[in-house]
Amino acid sequence: MPELSPQEIRRLVLAALAEDIRSGDATSLAVVPDDATSTARMVTREPAVACGLDFAVTAFRELDASLALHDPVPDGTRVPAGACLLRIEGRSRAILTAERVALNFVQRLSGVATATAAFADAVRGTSARILDTRKTTPGWRALEKYAVARGGGSNHRQALDDLILIKDNHLAALEGALPNPIAAAVARARARYPYLKIEVEADTLEQVSHAVAAGADIVLLDNMTPAQLAAAVRLCAGRVITEASGGVRLDTVRAIAETGVDFISVGAITHSVRAIDIGLDFALPA
Amino acid sequence: MPELSPQEIRRLVLAALAEDIRSGDATSLAVVPDDATSTARMVTREPAVACGLDFAVTAFRELDASLALHDPVPDGTRVPAGACLLRIEGRSRAILTAERVALNFVQRLSGVATATAAFADAVRGTSARILDTRKTTPGWRALEKYAVARGGGSNHRQALDDLILIKDNHLAALEGALPNPIAAAVARARARYPYLKIEVEADTLEQVSHAVAAGADIVLLDNMTPAQLAAAVRLCAGRVITEASGGVRLDTVRAIAETGVDFISVGAITHSVRAIDIGLDFALPA
Amino acid sequence: MPELSPQEIRRLVLAALAEDIRSGDATSLAVVPDDATSTARMVTREPAVACGLDFAVTAFRELDASLALHDPVPDGTRVPAGACLLRIEGRSRAILTAERVALNFVQRLSGVATATAAFADAVRGTSARILDTRKTTPGWRALEKYAVARGGGSNHRQALDDLILIKDNHLAALEGALPNPIAAAVARARARYPYLKIEVEADTLEQVSHAVAAGADIVLLDNMTPAQLAAAVRLCAGRVITEASGGVRLDTVRAIAETGVDFISVGAITHSVRAIDIGLDFALPA
Amino acid sequence: MPELSPQEIRRLVLAALAEDIRSGDATSLAVVPDDATSTARMVTREPAVACGLDFAVTAFRELDASLALHDPVPDGTRVPAGACLLRIEGRSRAILTAERVALNFVQRLSGVATATAAFADAVRGTSARILDTRKTTPGWRALEKYAVARGGGSNHRQALDDLILIKDNHLAALEGALPNPIAAAVARARARYPYLKIEVEADTLEQVSHAVAAGADIVLLDNMTPAQLAAAVRLCAGRVITEASGGVRLDTVRAIAETGVDFISVGAITHSVRAIDIGLDFALPA
Amino acid sequence: MPELSPQEIRRLVLAALAEDIRSGDATSLAVVPDDATSTARMVTREPAVACGLDFAVTAFRELDASLALHDPVPDGTRVPAGACLLRIEGRSRAILTAERVALNFVQRLSGVATATAAFADAVRGTSARILDTRKTTPGWRALEKYAVARGGGSNHRQALDDLILIKDNHLAALEGALPNPIAAAVARARARYPYLKIEVEADTLEQVSHAVAAGADIVLLDNMTPAQLAAAVRLCAGRVITEASGGVRLDTVRAIAETGVDFISVGAITHSVRAIDIGLDFALPA
Amino acid sequence: MPELSPQEIRRLVLAALAEDIRSGDATSLAVVPDDATSTARMVTREPAVACGLDFAVTAFRELDASLALHDPVPDGTRVPAGACLLRIEGRSRAILTAERVALNFVQRLSGVATATAAFADAVRGTSARILDTRKTTPGWRALEKYAVARGGGSNHRQALDDLILIKDNHLAALEGALPNPIAAAVARARARYPYLKIEVEADTLEQVSHAVAAGADIVLLDNMTPAQLAAAVRLCAGRVITEASGGVRLDTVRAIAETGVDFISVGAITHSVRAIDIGLDFALPA
Repeated sequence: MPELSPQEIRRLVLAALAEDIRSGDATSLAVVPDDATSTARMVTREPAVACGLDFAVTAFRELDASLALHDPVPDGTRVPAGACLLRIEGRSRAILTAERVALNFVQRLSGVATATAAFADAVRGTSARILDTRKTTPGWRALEKYAVARGGGSNHRQALDDLILIKDNHLAALEGALPNPIAAAVARARARYPYLKIEVEADTLEQVSHAVAAGADIVLLDNMTPAQLAAAVRLCAGRVITEASGGVRLDTVRAIAETGVDFISVGAITHSVRAIDIGLDFALPA
Repeated sequence: MPELSPQEIRRLVLAALAEDIRSGDATSLAVVPDDATSTARMVTREPAVACGLDFAVTAFRELDASLALHDPVPDGTRVPAGACLLRIEGRSRAILTAERVALNFVQRLSGVATATAAFADAVRGTSARILDTRKTTPGWRALEKYAVARGGGSNHRQALDDLILIKDNHLAALEGALPNPIAAAVARARARYPYLKIEVEADTLEQVSHAVAAGADIVLLDNMTPAQLAAAVRLCAGRVITEASGGVRLDTVRAIAETGVDFISVGAITHSVRAIDIGLDFALPA
Repeated sequence: MPELSPQEIRRLVLAALAEDIRSGDATSLAVVPDDATSTARMVTREPAVACGLDFAVTAFRELDASLALHDPVPDGTRVPAGACLLRIEGRSRAILTAERVALNFVQRLSGVATATAAFADAVRGTSARILDTRKTTPGWRALEKYAVARGGGSNHRQALDDLILIKDNHLAALEGALPNPIAAAVARARARYPYLKIEVEADTLEQVSHAVAAGADIVLLDNMTPAQLAAAVRLCAGRVITEASGGVRLDTVRAIAETGVDFISVGAITHSVRAIDIGLDFALPA
Repeated sequence: MPELSPQEIRRLVLAALAEDIRSGDATSLAVVPDDATSTARMVTREPAVACGLDFAVTAFRELDASLALHDPVPDGTRVPAGACLLRIEGRSRAILTAERVALNFVQRLSGVATATAAFADAVRGTSARILDTRKTTPGWRALEKYAVARGGGSNHRQALDDLILIKDNHLAALEGALPNPIAAAVARARARYPYLKIEVEADTLEQVSHAVAAGADIVLLDNMTPAQLAAAVRLCAGRVITEASGGVRLDTVRAIAETGVDFISVGAITHSVRAIDIGLDFALPA
Repeated sequence: MPELSPQEIRRLVLAALAEDIRSGDATSLAVVPDDATSTARMVTREPAVACGLDFAVTAFRELDASLALHDPVPDGTRVPAGACLLRIEGRSRAILTAERVALNFVQRLSGVATATAAFADAVRGTSARILDTRKTTPGWRALEKYAVARGGGSNHRQALDDLILIKDNHLAALEGALPNPIAAAVARARARYPYLKIEVEADTLEQVSHAVAAGADIVLLDNMTPAQLAAAVRLCAGRVITEASGGVRLDTVRAIAETGVDFISVGAITHSVRAIDIGLDFALPA
Repeated sequence: MPELSPQEIRRLVLAALAEDIRSGDATSLAVVPDDATSTARMVTREPAVACGLDFAVTAFRELDASLALHDPVPDGTRVPAGACLLRIEGRSRAILTAERVALNFVQRLSGVATATAAFADAVRGTSARILDTRKTTPGWRALEKYAVARGGGSNHRQALDDLILIKDNHLAALEGALPNPIAAAVARARARYPYLKIEVEADTLEQVSHAVAAGADIVLLDNMTPAQLAAAVRLCAGRVITEASGGVRLDTVRAIAETGVDFISVGAITHSVRAIDIGLDFALPA
């Protein structure tokens, strides 16, 4: 079983086709003869980590079950510029009508996977791994997290119910009444959700110490300098998982990774994605 | 009536909340007292064209109808770094639980509007206008086209059924049999869809001439140099609308615009969007 | 790719079956043995233009995938009284349970196609073509427009977003402020929706002149006499498409067509349809 | 509780608005100023039994909750030509955008109610009542049956599970093995569905006798002459309900009613409906 | 056609899988190799009437279409402890991921069928049959009624629209104005719904007499002693169907059945069901 | 924000009303005057932990927004036999039509809460807490887990993606290749899902030791005797959470709790629930 079920892929593809086609592909219906056939290749114009080919295959197949679909590249494959990701043969109308939807999925998911791979490459050789966040396109969380994993990243929580993550604003609601709000918050969370791990956001080393003392499973080290991060890692001493976060960029991620943190979360790999330049090349009729 | 109906906004927001909350916001339920209240401000960390505040307002309201929501910035407003886009007062839990969904919508839609505005600014003073494309996030076409319009762009077709756009691959299916495939294709399209405008893609000036002669309403000038574009504009001579397309960038768009084309379509304003850095600042309890 | 996708046909058929069957076809379940088989023919009792057989085929197949479905008549075929539109062989229960839904689709869609064909026949030899309107059954627009096309008509706009159609009530909102509201309205529409054609409703020849002068693509000639229509056609002089509209009947449509208009729109072919008398004849058991 | 719940009406209206508006009412958005207001009256151009005003009210309200909607005519009201069915005041754009959907519902449902009333009028003074059938528009069964009731008709079964109706084709599956298939079929049905009434189709008086003897609750007298119907009514002698069926027309229904049958079912009141001519008249701006 | 269509079973199973799997079966994805295969048997730990195997088959198949599914026990089969209800062979991950959903359906539906069978066994040899009620799990009515039928019970009405059932609270609304509310209520119901049977609730023998006199088709004998029931049966004298109801238990149902009532309705067989203990046994790898 | 959002409650209630009412509550429509009003009280016939009143309130309100709904008992309240859970005043028809759906929700959810409370009472004074399982009614997981929490239990995982739970069948797929499958499985899970807790099923004390050594967060002690459980608790020594499972009954749970385990999971509180006997009492008209 894949993480993205065929049923879910089909649901998303049908919705995308309906959104794009509506009452019909007027141009193809008017201009392209019903019996015309073509061979087309989905080609990347730049190096990339390919992702989302199942969506493309599904789009073409739903449009016309008789299309032949050859050699889709497995998700997560690194491909050079000019690589063929999928070959399609069959009725021209169906290929032309599904083209844009197929490309929209593959270009974006490959964009997420490629961006993730760039960060993963940058920390290679350290113990740090790249994490995604909840900063995903509404409706696309499962897809984007899937692409992150295919690009070599790890997935942070899926939603608000599979990890406790106590941030400063949660603590603010307790501070008035409590001498050590981190300890109080962790205790409350453990009592109510014994089956979930608990992560605590820390802006200072003092907060890191409090989180460790409170028995947090993970500490989120927010916007710290490499020096602070290294000190925080020492405080956690292998007992608590460390995650660095906050405005991480490709040119800063290596220094962060070398502090010894376990994870580095990067919002940009899902919220600010550049689509990979991928197109459909039609073979000239013989 | 807005182009995005309140019913549609609500549908998208509820789906996004379900995707993010699932069985419950464990952290807020465990840590934040049910009766705690907060005041929060949605603040942009960088200059932007704000867009999507209705989504944020809807997200907070669906979570808790008793939240007070003040002064949402109208979509399309240019705001400086530090500007407040929305103020929220009420139960802390509801604000914290809806925060991420509200931000995910506003950050992305503001990203589209801001990118569009940058292109629109770059062509100011020419007769050219910026157009979007069908290279949108599946499921988000209406939203992204809305944000393009708020950012000062114009909308190209919504889907495959509201404009005929004859590309090279459509013509390829006809070429074997026909001496002048552009004329044949335009004639077929006009006969079948008399109520739609017809656009023809042209890679060469000869094709531009054919399209004009065939009575096309619009010519898509694909990947032409400024010199070619200027020549094409002269061929169209005000009788046919001209649209330049193909790898347009912020640093090249001005030269394209100065050729006299009517429209310049830019895929990147929807397919490769950088989210605007926008956060929620909670006021310290008094 | 057909204009009505198999996925959409299936969705509509499943909804119709659920509406009709609900918890089960009590009669067939109680009376008809599970292993009884039948042969049935769908037969029209009157001459017609057949339409909707895909819906019938889908209804029978969804009820029982083992039914054999032979020789469905292609949509748009003119058939005499007594013609067989589809033969079905297999389990009697499934045939009996799906019968009504299959017939309800075919009778109504054939009704639309047949009515359209009657109008199309009446204008044969003129340059006029028959158009549908937006006066369709809510939920059935795509189906009814499909049947109009199969019956020999042309399709007017699908919805409110694929053509500008400026009527008197739109102009009324502008008239107070403006000397020539038609020119102003056309200019506004062209600026905002450069990719859409613009149609203007005209009740008088003066309005026709204004519409032509304003650069409208189409003029809707509303409730004009043949003499007025002929004059309007002369004013448009081949530069602007003409559409006659308003209470068109079978006994008046020829005279309208002979004025030289390009199109004649007829609401009755979708809003007031007589179902074709079509039944299912079961063969006597041998 | 009405038979058509407000939730169901809203669901149907929203689907119809989405079908008609899609990405936006281009004409109104471009031409009509956002702050323009109008007063409009929904007026019937011919005498009718009004039906469906709740749909119109809902359509206008969903488009713009600030519209004032006055004096909707209660469903089932007989109105003369020129009668006002609903008055609407407020933003012109919203009124214009919802107009077609509102009218499409009211015109069709009033058409059903008016056709039903014509048949009900024709049998006035006899003991016969007019019944609908399952020959309804797929997706519209509840609406059309509602309109039949408002027009003065009675509703036959809603679906295949709330009445046993044994037709000749059901019996055909049993005949080979059984001397008296009607008796056998009725017995089977009563055993399996003790809580449902049982109706038996009869083409001959002999079959009527069999049905009465078998204990049927209702006999469907199919395509009988008035003389046969009268004889059948005598055979049923008040013990079994009688329903006449088969090609009933306005000019034949009275003779059928005078035979003493309890019910006359008429497919045409739902499957072949003429829409009532109803329009929206905008008041001239003062 | 089964009463539960394959389309409906699939819809319910997909919803259940989505509810249980959400973003993925983390354990199987992490621990079980993608190419591991298993053989598993669904085994009941106690005697039961098996029901719901189609749901299990569908769950496994939707997870992985390549799973081999052997020998599902037909619904309604009485099986001893240790019986195998279904064998599954194929990818271990898919079997493990679908296991819980498959079991949840089969355990509950077998629970309903088994409980029904216990009551049906208890009245064997009398003329009484066991009926279900509307006291079903919201969303599960069709499923639970299906399981009742497979367990040897009969189905009472599906919903509020396929039988008139006049209870004391309906009569209370009439009593002020009317001398004989049962007669009045029956008359009203017959006039409005001539095609439905009418059942009347009676708490006393006097009410039974009124119901019989009013022409009720069925009398619901509520909370009566066996002696009262026997007297009521005599009053109905075969002309009116009798149904006993009210707190029926396995140890009291026989005495009730021996009074001669036609039906005994039991809420507990749907509202208070004990799941059958059924598990999935994996074969040791050879 | 409640764990069950008002939007979700509404969705479930509307589906349940549609399932029960379908085309209309025939009895109430025929028998009860439209303007009749009643006062009714929802009363429990036995002691219970009340749960689900929001569903009842929503059902009545959706049927008729003008109903007055007084004093719903908060979920989780222990009430004696005869207690009033909700008072309703208003149109009789609406109350009667919504009655069954409202009761079906409250009876079942109160059944879950009451059963949970019985187990929680039985372990009072020990350190053990009662947990639910994934053995829930398909479609009802969120509801049943909510009722467990209101009854004083704790919630185990919601789905397959918020906790790793390694069972014997997962290990079986690894055993051939690996000397210590528990250690290997835990390591795999931790690497892939660093943010999830890991639970390991143990049937023997040796497996408990392996799980503790592997760093499991929780050990599931399956079908152990109290003596084994006590030994297992000692092995875990406060470092690892312990959960006892397997055929737990009300008469055995206390002994299990006294072994010192942290949690006891009980499938029966969701898979074999007895509905609480709750009815609607109508006040006699004054």
